[in-house]
Amino acid sequence: MRVRTVLEGVGQSVAIDAGGPFVVIGERINPSGRESLARQLVRGDMSLVREDALAQSKAGAHVIDVSVSALDVDEEQTLPRAVKEVAGVVGAPICIDTSNHRALAAALDACPGRPLVNSVTGEKASLEVVLPLVKDRGCAVVGLCIDERGIPKDSSSRLEIAKRIVGAADEHGIAVEDVVIDPLAMAVASDQQAALVTLEAIGSIRANLGVNTTLGGSNMSFGLPERELINRSFLAMCVAAGLTSALLNPLDVEIRRTVAACNLLMGWDEYAMQFLQRSRSGW
Amino acid sequence: MRVRTVLEGVGQSVAIDAGGPFVVIGERINPSGRESLARQLVRGDMSLVREDALAQSKAGAHVIDVSVSALDVDEEQTLPRAVKEVAGVVGAPICIDTSNHRALAAALDACPGRPLVNSVTGEKASLEVVLPLVKDRGCAVVGLCIDERGIPKDSSSRLEIAKRIVGAADEHGIAVEDVVIDPLAMAVASDQQAALVTLEAIGSIRANLGVNTTLGGSNMSFGLPERELINRSFLAMCVAAGLTSALLNPLDVEIRRTVAACNLLMGWDEYAMQFLQRSRSGW
Repeated sequence: MRVRTVLEGVGQSVAIDAGGPFVVIGERINPSGRESLARQLVRGDMSLVREDALAQSKAGAHVIDVSVSALDVDEEQTLPRAVKEVAGVVGAPICIDTSNHRALAAALDACPGRPLVNSVTGEKASLEVVLPLVKDRGCAVVGLCIDERGIPKDSSSRLEIAKRIVGAADEHGIAVEDVVIDPLAMAVASDQQAALVTLEAIGSIRANLGVNTTLGGSNMSFGLPERELINRSFLAMCVAAGLTSALLNPLDVEIRRTVAACNLLMGWDEYAMQFLQRSRSGW
Repeated sequence: MRVRTVLEGVGQSVAIDAGGPFVVIGERINPSGRESLARQLVRGDMSLVREDALAQSKAGAHVIDVSVSALDVDEEQTLPRAVKEVAGVVGAPICIDTSNHRALAAALDACPGRPLVNSVTGEKASLEVVLPLVKDRGCAVVGLCIDERGIPKDSSSRLEIAKRIVGAADEHGIAVEDVVIDPLAMAVASDQQAALVTLEAIGSIRANLGVNTTLGGSNMSFGLPERELINRSFLAMCVAAGLTSALLNPLDVEIRRTVAACNLLMGWDEYAMQFLQRSRSGW
């Protein structure tokens, strides 16, 4: 079984697909840990939002994630505005990133095309509120492998949550190809088995449910030095295990190079044309 | 099933084991593409052989591969001498790398400890000559997934050859833990599916035979630019797929960094102690 998750922006369509290529969801528009962006969002200034959207799109992001969640930011007001601003400058589909359901509803109203909703969890309260919005809008949704008991330590329990999310989506009339599962990655510094569990979960979710998968690409290295080295090694491992998309920073040249190498090695780059072209143009 | 391939040098013992850590077989002592080493070997000068052994051992190689195969080099004379020289300067086990059976026999006589023979193939003629030497010496052997018909394009045929090698070894009284299978890696530039086939073969050989695996780490990138980027990405993919050792150049800092990241991510580096220590000491 192999499914295609089709997302649409303003004139651009992107498919997440096990047949590749790997889909990069640009993660930069997120005020967590970015003081300058947080300050602008509090003031309602959208200039960095526009700049980040453009720069990431030029750097090869297929989808642009938009999160405005920060202290003192009114998400319900700000998220729909940010989504509109991004759609005004890039053609790429948007990933609406919020855990605030009213902000999500407002952002979905403001967003053109066929966005990706990031995210629903395995918690009953989340499934009951988010899935009707996704169904109503006819878009796709990221399902996080977390429920009322937290993030399971083992991969089989994460698979169980993924099954529950796919099942609940089906009950709401959302097709399996419109659910993208995030198996979640914990920091390897605090749990030695963390990467292995995520790799196993990617493989078993793919084998059992056939759905596409995504991942925040930088949690794994939290608390360690040389995070870029750890992140790029883990990215290659995850792609080999079956991961079909990830939230990444495409402005990081090492991430762009690793994604190009992964596409080449997975057989997703005919005649190595993309790889050679990017290598020649200095990435 | 999980097996341990135990190799011994002069006072040092190394186990290749799916429980990690990843075993680095230093590939530098090989005159192919190294003019200076080839010229020395023709003259019988062993100074680069000694230098390379020492440098690789200091750089973290667990096993030292020794190949002297080059035009105008008398392997039968030179290989035993080179093996003795290496054993004279490092405690690491030796990987005797030759397709010349008389040179192999002579090198085995000269080699202390419990070496790794690199290699036997799935060809009848190779199995019949190499396996008795391995059994007689009581050491371990690398089995290449190639036979009379060449290197199969698909992973299931490579698994079949691996099965045949393990079966023939068993008939000769060689235990399954003393066979390390090399699934082989072709250049992705000439076959878009090459990496994928190798990754599949690593997984299926591990799942079906439980044996340890090794790989020449740099063939994959042949004919392409930025080989180091492709090699390190492929290495991470292979480790995630179950590869337990590889022939690598430990003098390349990016290879050392990638191996350390892989050990960390596979849960083979308790409390990230190795990673932190190497990072602090500048690798």
